[in-house]
Amino acid sequence: MRALFVGRFQPFHLGHFLVVRDICKEFDELVIVIGSSQESYTFRNPFTAGERVEMIGRVIQKNFRDKTIYLIPVPDILNNNLWVAHLESLTPRFSVVFTRNPLVKKLFEVRGYKVVEQKFYKGYSASDIRKRIANNREWKNLVPDEVYKYIEEIGGEERIKDLKNIERC
Amino acid sequence: MRALFVGRFQPFHLGHFLVVRDICKEFDELVIVIGSSQESYTFRNPFTAGERVEMIGRVIQKNFRDKTIYLIPVPDILNNNLWVAHLESLTPRFSVVFTRNPLVKKLFEVRGYKVVEQKFYKGYSASDIRKRIANNREWKNLVPDEVYKYIEEIGGEERIKDLKNIERC
Amino acid sequence: MRALFVGRFQPFHLGHFLVVRDICKEFDELVIVIGSSQESYTFRNPFTAGERVEMIGRVIQKNFRDKTIYLIPVPDILNNNLWVAHLESLTPRFSVVFTRNPLVKKLFEVRGYKVVEQKFYKGYSASDIRKRIANNREWKNLVPDEVYKYIEEIGGEERIKDLKNIERC
Amino acid sequence: MRALFVGRFQPFHLGHFLVVRDICKEFDELVIVIGSSQESYTFRNPFTAGERVEMIGRVIQKNFRDKTIYLIPVPDILNNNLWVAHLESLTPRFSVVFTRNPLVKKLFEVRGYKVVEQKFYKGYSASDIRKRIANNREWKNLVPDEVYKYIEEIGGEERIKDLKNIERC
Amino acid sequence: MRALFVGRFQPFHLGHFLVVRDICKEFDELVIVIGSSQESYTFRNPFTAGERVEMIGRVIQKNFRDKTIYLIPVPDILNNNLWVAHLESLTPRFSVVFTRNPLVKKLFEVRGYKVVEQKFYKGYSASDIRKRIANNREWKNLVPDEVYKYIEEIGGEERIKDLKNIERC
Amino acid sequence: MRALFVGRFQPFHLGHFLVVRDICKEFDELVIVIGSSQESYTFRNPFTAGERVEMIGRVIQKNFRDKTIYLIPVPDILNNNLWVAHLESLTPRFSVVFTRNPLVKKLFEVRGYKVVEQKFYKGYSASDIRKRIANNREWKNLVPDEVYKYIEEIGGEERIKDLKNIERC
Repeated sequence: MRALFVGRFQPFHLGHFLVVRDICKEFDELVIVIGSSQESYTFRNPFTAGERVEMIGRVIQKNFRDKTIYLIPVPDILNNNLWVAHLESLTPRFSVVFTRNPLVKKLFEVRGYKVVEQKFYKGYSASDIRKRIANNREWKNLVPDEVYKYIEEIGGEERIKDLKNIERC
Repeated sequence: MRALFVGRFQPFHLGHFLVVRDICKEFDELVIVIGSSQESYTFRNPFTAGERVEMIGRVIQKNFRDKTIYLIPVPDILNNNLWVAHLESLTPRFSVVFTRNPLVKKLFEVRGYKVVEQKFYKGYSASDIRKRIANNREWKNLVPDEVYKYIEEIGGEERIKDLKNIERC
Repeated sequence: MRALFVGRFQPFHLGHFLVVRDICKEFDELVIVIGSSQESYTFRNPFTAGERVEMIGRVIQKNFRDKTIYLIPVPDILNNNLWVAHLESLTPRFSVVFTRNPLVKKLFEVRGYKVVEQKFYKGYSASDIRKRIANNREWKNLVPDEVYKYIEEIGGEERIKDLKNIERC
Repeated sequence: MRALFVGRFQPFHLGHFLVVRDICKEFDELVIVIGSSQESYTFRNPFTAGERVEMIGRVIQKNFRDKTIYLIPVPDILNNNLWVAHLESLTPRFSVVFTRNPLVKKLFEVRGYKVVEQKFYKGYSASDIRKRIANNREWKNLVPDEVYKYIEEIGGEERIKDLKNIERC
Repeated sequence: MRALFVGRFQPFHLGHFLVVRDICKEFDELVIVIGSSQESYTFRNPFTAGERVEMIGRVIQKNFRDKTIYLIPVPDILNNNLWVAHLESLTPRFSVVFTRNPLVKKLFEVRGYKVVEQKFYKGYSASDIRKRIANNREWKNLVPDEVYKYIEEIGGEERIKDLKNIERC
Repeated sequence: MRALFVGRFQPFHLGHFLVVRDICKEFDELVIVIGSSQESYTFRNPFTAGERVEMIGRVIQKNFRDKTIYLIPVPDILNNNLWVAHLESLTPRFSVVFTRNPLVKKLFEVRGYKVVEQKFYKGYSASDIRKRIANNREWKNLVPDEVYKYIEEIGGEERIKDLKNIERC
């Protein structure tokens, strides 16, 4: 049985990590869909799809090497009603969907998928992490070490601060 | 150092397999780009991007588990001049490109990449394999076992025969 | 003479119905354009174009069988300046446009069409009906019977409530 | 029960007419999908979607007024695998598909639809009619009267001859 | 050496004019990119790309005939990360970029361009000019004479007032 | 009065030059539309739109400085019927169209434009020039000097030879 986990991962944080860990206890294979893959260099979506692939890829290499995990970038399309069919054409087949986004949940259910609301790990929010970075507050302990190092490497903190200022213009 | 290998993989055959094996001797990490990801259900491109991801994923699980290999579907875009920038936004960064397609080679060189023409393994051709399937000729020994089994599972032989007939219409 | 009537019809209500009735008194043929046809499964645009075609189709079957009415889904395009030419390529020719939307009015006038502001039937608003459904208030008497039954059949009330909650996230 | 009939209708000829007549004997409602709706002004696709809607609409008004027939323009999309989902979002729901195109047949079957190969009426071919028009040969008796008159009205014969010459350039 | 100047120019005002004059003192050649070229007939983007080309073209004819100035319409694309490559494929090569928009600045710097923040001429703002027009306040002295005359010619004042009302709906 | 001249200009040759010279005798202003602007790096369309803008721009600087000439890149769109409206939104207004392409002629005439078939200068053909370059034959005397120098500067001869080989693959 293969599971699907959908997110934007801007960035991939410890809450995401714990969900992947939970899913891996039950499933041998997992497809992680990196949504809104066409977005980058905005405060809401600072990282390119390729950067998000690498960020999550490093975490998997370190922690889930024995699992079969597919990382698939999926761009948004205008028509919500087509989105699941669009995603299906880009990913290996899956039988269960993990998401907390109610629209994603509804769209998969309409197409006959079983949707599970994953356990919620309080205190982890990508939007909060972006704000912390913009305001020079602590965020290191909210993401896996590999993600922290990767964001440092590519100058991600500075990028997020710049993009925050752009929003203010 | 991370390498990039570009193909359509319709289907992934032993020639592709041997190139991946060669690259893995030299590089720790590899990005395999599944090109023309928007195409499927034509004789030239019978499999969806998702099916190609799964087909190659099974080969990797069996043979290259210790390597870090990213499988990234990339759709075509109309403007050749933009294609490399488009691909860069979807993949982890890479420093060497493996391809035998002269246009792909040229487009990467224009952007400053080092391009290597991989060793050519004679006798393996995706176009030839599709024709063999359409004509009920032997093809099992031209692809990795995992690919053969996967194509059987999803009714790929019958699909290719149907699509061949459609071309004749 | 053929008239054109443009709307999103999310849903088609008694105000729309009365306008169609008025137009049918003067014109033998009518093109009803279902705008924003690419949108669905949002609180603002809950129904697919196909569902809107069926919803209006049932009303026409019941009430305007003797008229020639075309129902044409038209997707939005980014460039307002191109929208009328885009619509012209999808619809039978028409000589008069009925609309109350001032932008639609302006865009047709720029292209030389005669635009008529249809009579306004107070008390009917699609946006208000969606809110009523979301808040469990009465709405049955605001739409034609056929529309009410159709929305019931496809679980439209529940869908609108779900989509409203999604907006709140 | 509602049936679906898919074609490009360049132009709508007596073969199409006889199929619609056959379907109407069995079904109360019919959705006619006008495919490749984005194409026009080529020798292969001389008429806009709007012109094809009007051409077929006149035939329906004259011959099938008592039936509920929906005429829906559907543009091509690049990804064959998505095409049925795309069409579903634009049309009222249907339970049986009539087509002789083997790719269309396959794509609907993959999605679980029942596909019927309609009776074939020999001697009617849109491609042949376009060639006859281009070569000043007889074609009037190959299409319904309403279609012949409509094509005359919009200067369709001259357009097809011009487009044929363009092909030769 | 060739410079690049990016803006939406809705409309081209005296602040833009003074920047072009400044750049022309240092550079022989200038590429003016008319951004968001797909937008028109909204209060934020009232003029089509073609109208903006003509508006700026008249100013250049009158004031900068001895310079080589290219006016290139460039549509937005969804992926910020691709935007500079997209622009490069549409314009002559350039070595310096003039912009005050911090996102544009960042995107060019990421691709290795030198970006100069042009001198800011206080008191000129396209958004302010559109509001003045909408509110029947003085704006003639804020734009070059050629722009004022051109906007009069095409009925631009009335268009902006109409579009402002549309926004209010 | 402003004229419009449409071409792909792959490359801009002496035949094009002579037509521009002829038009400039009659008209003060000219819009040159660089068609298929999204194409590049194919044997049929070797140069990007930006390169074509610069190539023609240098010829204009040298030979037609006293004229007002706009160079506008226009991408293809799928729907022929929409192409003229699409072009109109990107260019200054014009009253006469110069073209020898019969489809372009037809599409402008349908929209009410006056179309003039420009004088044909025998012996100049972009397709022939690309073949000559690919086959190491003389081509210098078939293009304006500025174009020859520019193509040399950007390595255009080598690019065209490479692209020719790619076609052979």
